Amino acid sequence: MINNSQEYIRKINQKSKKAFNTISISNTKKRNLAILNTSKFIESNKSAILDANNIDIENAKEKNVSDAFLDRLLLNDKRIQDIINGLKQIAEIDDPLGVELSRWKRPNGLDISRVSVPLGVIGIIYESRPNVTIDAGGLCIKSGNSVILRGGSDSIHSSIILAKCLQDGLREADLPPEAVQIIENTDRDIVTAMLRSTGEIDVIIPRGGKSLVEKVQNEARVPVFAHLEGICHLYVDKDADIDKAVKIIVNSKMRRTGICGALETLLIDQEISQKLVPVIVNKLINEGCHIKGDSEVKKIVNSVELATEIDWHTEYLDSILSIKIVNGIKDAINHINKYSSSHTESIITENNITAETFLSNVDSAIVMHNASTQFADGGEFGMGAEIGISTGRIHARGPVGAAQLTSFKYIVRGNDQIRD
Amino acid sequence: MINNSQEYIRKINQKSKKAFNTISISNTKKRNLAILNTSKFIESNKSAILDANNIDIENAKEKNVSDAFLDRLLLNDKRIQDIINGLKQIAEIDDPLGVELSRWKRPNGLDISRVSVPLGVIGIIYESRPNVTIDAGGLCIKSGNSVILRGGSDSIHSSIILAKCLQDGLREADLPPEAVQIIENTDRDIVTAMLRSTGEIDVIIPRGGKSLVEKVQNEARVPVFAHLEGICHLYVDKDADIDKAVKIIVNSKMRRTGICGALETLLIDQEISQKLVPVIVNKLINEGCHIKGDSEVKKIVNSVELATEIDWHTEYLDSILSIKIVNGIKDAINHINKYSSSHTESIITENNITAETFLSNVDSAIVMHNASTQFADGGEFGMGAEIGISTGRIHARGPVGAAQLTSFKYIVRGNDQIRD
Repeated sequence: MINNSQEYIRKINQKSKKAFNTISISNTKKRNLAILNTSKFIESNKSAILDANNIDIENAKEKNVSDAFLDRLLLNDKRIQDIINGLKQIAEIDDPLGVELSRWKRPNGLDISRVSVPLGVIGIIYESRPNVTIDAGGLCIKSGNSVILRGGSDSIHSSIILAKCLQDGLREADLPPEAVQIIENTDRDIVTAMLRSTGEIDVIIPRGGKSLVEKVQNEARVPVFAHLEGICHLYVDKDADIDKAVKIIVNSKMRRTGICGALETLLIDQEISQKLVPVIVNKLINEGCHIKGDSEVKKIVNSVELATEIDWHTEYLDSILSIKIVNGIKDAINHINKYSSSHTESIITENNITAETFLSNVDSAIVMHNASTQFADGGEFGMGAEIGISTGRIHARGPVGAAQLTSFKYIVRGNDQIRD
Repeated sequence: MINNSQEYIRKINQKSKKAFNTISISNTKKRNLAILNTSKFIESNKSAILDANNIDIENAKEKNVSDAFLDRLLLNDKRIQDIINGLKQIAEIDDPLGVELSRWKRPNGLDISRVSVPLGVIGIIYESRPNVTIDAGGLCIKSGNSVILRGGSDSIHSSIILAKCLQDGLREADLPPEAVQIIENTDRDIVTAMLRSTGEIDVIIPRGGKSLVEKVQNEARVPVFAHLEGICHLYVDKDADIDKAVKIIVNSKMRRTGICGALETLLIDQEISQKLVPVIVNKLINEGCHIKGDSEVKKIVNSVELATEIDWHTEYLDSILSIKIVNGIKDAINHINKYSSSHTESIITENNITAETFLSNVDSAIVMHNASTQFADGGEFGMGAEIGISTGRIHARGPVGAAQLTSFKYIVRGNDQIRD
């Protein structure tokens, strides 16, 4: 079975590589045209897309999936319009290719430049969210890459018809439709075969929950851009403004609790704890948040649940917050470096020197000063759409947008130099 | 046995990570001091280093290794001076850390910057070349990383004493000596355990011949920066100046035949072949090079050996060159994209438009115009020392120097922004 799957994937990989050889050297006008064509095809095929989605929805209902699952699966007029608008935004961002990243001249006259080029063949493994098909396809076309899409089996009808719009968009822009391929076979062995495609797939990006990402990270023989979880911390320094701190904490935790940039652990300097803890606990409980605190927090507000070691390791993705009192910034940084998932951490302080210490010493993909952790997002960073956030240290870190889906090459312009 | 090795490596990895937490946030002065201290310790321990090297040399001679092997293993006064000079050069290059790679402001006032940070724990697996111990150690200290060195067993005495100089250099600069660790256990299972250190070692760099790199690439569960081979091409366009072409070809092939940037396949446009082939074949044969040509080359100079399919795939690393006549630049690019190892390719032409076509359409780490392929080297690029050349597309591509051993993070400076 695995052998069959590997044969199946190898053929797809080969077509992808062949399409890459064309799309990678195509001009920005053609690539943007392919993206805009896709939005046009989505518009003109809207009713067929909704019908396909309805099949997926009905099948999923028979399986008694959760309401949240159905919501992620659902397409409607507004969501299709969002998808179309997203594609238009991708078409509008600057071309990430051919950017001169640096250039210098050597004493012997050699003129060396480092220029961005497409990354290669990208594999996207995602859950049953049809819109990821378009986000991923659009970003990969924009950045001159080939993409192999493997969506969740419950969204297969929706994803196939959306992928077809991308292929038609490419074809009408005179680009190879195989630059976007979708795996229609929902066999799980196919994922394993993708993860083993060393030398054929250049990078795999998993888009989904922890169990999906964990499987990909454990089994992959090719590089992976991903984050397993976002255990995001916010530290309130002794020099913080209490009102601002409360506003930012509530937003970081409660704006949307299910996103990876949501706050999970709040650290409060002991010097400010008597003032802040009662206010913030009360405010959050009023907003519907459950509070777990360490023994020092309980000394101030005894009614909160006692946090245990496991809480500091937990990404709740829910209206729950753990709070710990720390002894100054050093203690805060030590806690973060021990428990953080290296996603996003923020400090609240009016003291810029303390802020800079935090920003340099906390080793996470995103570090913030006086801002909500909920800004950890490619769109909010001004990158346009993103295909996820990476907590890895290799190649892409933080939001992964079109510019992060590039590699580079060195161009050396000489006038007949030979080496001594 | 593997389990024991994994336990052994795990302890080393943990010490490395702990040292990383300190060296990664140390200032440039301390890191440069550690590098200069190391050169001082090498100088003052020169006779002990030569004694240790002598043990390695005597042991190797008993194994009847090749002269080339002994030459790579040998240290002498001059080579130790070269090592010391190399360290001084590494100390002098710009700090690769804390570099603001980009910075922008969002409409809501958030100030976002992308700043270089150290990469993490780096594993270097190398053959019996003692000088790699110092190159790798020096570059990793410069870039704020921790390094785990696994040198060839035949250079173990030399490498251990050199690694001790690095550790003493770190200690005297008040940095953790465990930022450089050398594996003294020469058991081969240790390499396998390193390659499986997912989440503990951030990147592995193999430095050595094809069989070493192949083993690392096949077995690694962590990212690898490497090149398997350098099948470098040079294309002589119809608009080339013959004299310049001859000069560059001879240098690309014959200056040093054993390096990865040496020319292996020469492509000549048919329009210029009648003029160039007799001259270049004659010149190279006089220089001691063996020529293999396709049937079109043989029509011009019948005495050359007929090249077969296998030649186009071969990195000779010797005084042998394969030559093929092609039908214009498109044919040349197709040949290169089919057979190249994506290392370095050069075009010789006086026509800048043709040159730009080549530079954009050839998908290799380094592409050159009117220059010898032998310039494919970090030192020649002005990067200072390099730890190798990568043909991968993820993170590092081309020469891997100190700047390529960095990652980055996003720093977001706000004034109390919350997200809508």
